[in-house]
Amino acid sequence: MWGAIEHLGRDDRTGGYLRDAWSPADLELRLWFEQEAAGRGLDTRQDRNGNLWAWWGDPSASPGVVTGSHLDSVRQGGAFDGPLGVVSAFAALDLLRAGDFRPARPLGIACFTDEEGARFGVPCIGSRLLTGVLDPGRARALTDDEGDSLAEVLRRAGRDPEELGRDEETLRHIGVFVELHVEQGRDLVHRDAPVGVASAIWPHGRWRFDFHGQANHAGTTRLADRDDPMLPFARTVLHARQAAERGGVVATFGRTRVSPNNANAVPGLVSAWLDARGGDEDAVRALVAEVAEFSGAEVTAESWTPLVDFDAALRERIAAVAGGAPVLVTGAGHDAGILASAGVPGAMVFVRNPTGISHSPEEHAERADCHAGVAALAAVLEDLCGS
Amino acid sequence: MWGAIEHLGRDDRTGGYLRDAWSPADLELRLWFEQEAAGRGLDTRQDRNGNLWAWWGDPSASPGVVTGSHLDSVRQGGAFDGPLGVVSAFAALDLLRAGDFRPARPLGIACFTDEEGARFGVPCIGSRLLTGVLDPGRARALTDDEGDSLAEVLRRAGRDPEELGRDEETLRHIGVFVELHVEQGRDLVHRDAPVGVASAIWPHGRWRFDFHGQANHAGTTRLADRDDPMLPFARTVLHARQAAERGGVVATFGRTRVSPNNANAVPGLVSAWLDARGGDEDAVRALVAEVAEFSGAEVTAESWTPLVDFDAALRERIAAVAGGAPVLVTGAGHDAGILASAGVPGAMVFVRNPTGISHSPEEHAERADCHAGVAALAAVLEDLCGS
Repeated sequence: MWGAIEHLGRDDRTGGYLRDAWSPADLELRLWFEQEAAGRGLDTRQDRNGNLWAWWGDPSASPGVVTGSHLDSVRQGGAFDGPLGVVSAFAALDLLRAGDFRPARPLGIACFTDEEGARFGVPCIGSRLLTGVLDPGRARALTDDEGDSLAEVLRRAGRDPEELGRDEETLRHIGVFVELHVEQGRDLVHRDAPVGVASAIWPHGRWRFDFHGQANHAGTTRLADRDDPMLPFARTVLHARQAAERGGVVATFGRTRVSPNNANAVPGLVSAWLDARGGDEDAVRALVAEVAEFSGAEVTAESWTPLVDFDAALRERIAAVAGGAPVLVTGAGHDAGILASAGVPGAMVFVRNPTGISHSPEEHAERADCHAGVAALAAVLEDLCGS
Repeated sequence: MWGAIEHLGRDDRTGGYLRDAWSPADLELRLWFEQEAAGRGLDTRQDRNGNLWAWWGDPSASPGVVTGSHLDSVRQGGAFDGPLGVVSAFAALDLLRAGDFRPARPLGIACFTDEEGARFGVPCIGSRLLTGVLDPGRARALTDDEGDSLAEVLRRAGRDPEELGRDEETLRHIGVFVELHVEQGRDLVHRDAPVGVASAIWPHGRWRFDFHGQANHAGTTRLADRDDPMLPFARTVLHARQAAERGGVVATFGRTRVSPNNANAVPGLVSAWLDARGGDEDAVRALVAEVAEFSGAEVTAESWTPLVDFDAALRERIAAVAGGAPVLVTGAGHDAGILASAGVPGAMVFVRNPTGISHSPEEHAERADCHAGVAALAAVLEDLCGS
């Protein structure tokens, strides 16, 4: 299956992927998903928020067991974050069918829309809308770097943006959701295990800092006459790092937008996004408050996800079925976390990442570990669906 | 004339202009230039480097008097930087003709290509190529933000990139070049004069700083394991400002490119452009050397223009003809400066800017001052062309 999608949205200069939600590459990936589902006789439905659901059995009759992930990427991301969960879902289904398995409950494969938030700044848009955590009006008004709103982008993709919002019918179909994902750290390397299970997701959020100044000519404006927003931005970057070290959390300014972004102009505006996470919610919130106060910038909260504790009984059951896989905590957000926060029982299976590098073209998982992931996922689905 | 071009390349959300060289807006502006010239019976020639020359009289017979400027803009720039010099050139010609003036020497109106360097990072590409200051091979390999080379962009515009390079024939046509430009400071406000004349252009240059790091996940990568290039970039921004204050020069980081530029990824690369200028060449060079050393970044010199002293006799003559206009030094680079450095006699006429703001949608000149500029330019051209 990899062969059909490995070229989609790839920047051949860097090897990184550019799979923004609703971009041509993303639309091709969605088509590929539907074709893989159709080839297996599954019925693909698109929910009100653009998430895709391929069903073996009818979930209207009784809630099903769902697995899957997402197909969009961060910009210049790796091949595994997202697609590994979708490809493994189809592969696990094939493995179960090869063993003549007949599920007692409907089995679904999901593809969530815009998990990374690369285009509109808010991650997990598809699952946040589905569960009602994200207000549909706010979602429609989100804009990308070109200034196009999500509503316009959806209309261009042939969808009705007025349909966005909490989707009770789709939620009723999901009895339990298991997401397989490449690990984004090196815990499994240290534990010498190819596969692990998530215990919890750190509380995490994203805040936009707008540093306002006065655009002007870089040659003719005296230093004393300048109001250059690059200076408070730079001070804030350094302050955030120190505050994160003190607070025992992580804080990152990984995205900026400078306007007008000319080498010969003092900027008029520097926008920068602070990503902050940690094991302790109060420590994360304290860091953000302190950095916001220090910055003098206009600060807008773009997303916040509290601590997600996955269902303990389900986690232990999965760890046992998956051959005694170790249990890990993670700092990365996922659609499974959004669903779990909204009361949908969920769990995550991680596949070892030799370097721990993710959100980069160097993201990698060994083939043998991917196969171990598929085997574990198949065992989990078999257990959850009954036989 | 303003009415025909004021909407071209304008971002209606900000009022700023986006007139990158060879963009659709720039191509329309070039067409407008040819139409204005044709409407006046002038013969427009395009030189090897894409600069436009509209001639009244035949410059092959004897070198002419040339005026003009450029039509491209910085991103989110103002309406005056560039176009004021071109519009005023046509208006001055109209004024001379209305008075039945017949030039004894050919009179040319020039539109230089890509003066701002917004697209390919190097300013004054058209005049630098014309004079041979910029190597044509290096120019062809310059890339824009999309990764397209200047060679590809020229080919798409129907031009042959192999033609680029020093253009002896065109240079022979230019006896003297006078560029009218909106002032980019407030000297004329302080002197209470609508029009001034340039004495010199500060030495100035542009350097790209590449801060290399390791792209990684912003949630799962421990602070201690990070190699985050945003941190040395931030330290360098602050250091450059302090060093500029100490050195009595100006230094600006006004343009950055962060890769991958995702809120949830530690960047792998931060590229930033340092613009440095000052009255003393040694002080500018010392600043750049110190900041480069401090930064630890990979530093590439993208452009350098030494001090330009405009011809003193010509400057005094122009100041006298223009009604005793004051003489100013400027920190802004111009095509007239590139030509003067290459031995083409040149001069500049500035029109008052009430706020001094430039490279911004707020850039402005009062109508009466623009008319004073046209009148001064007409007087200068009449004087230089003979009657």
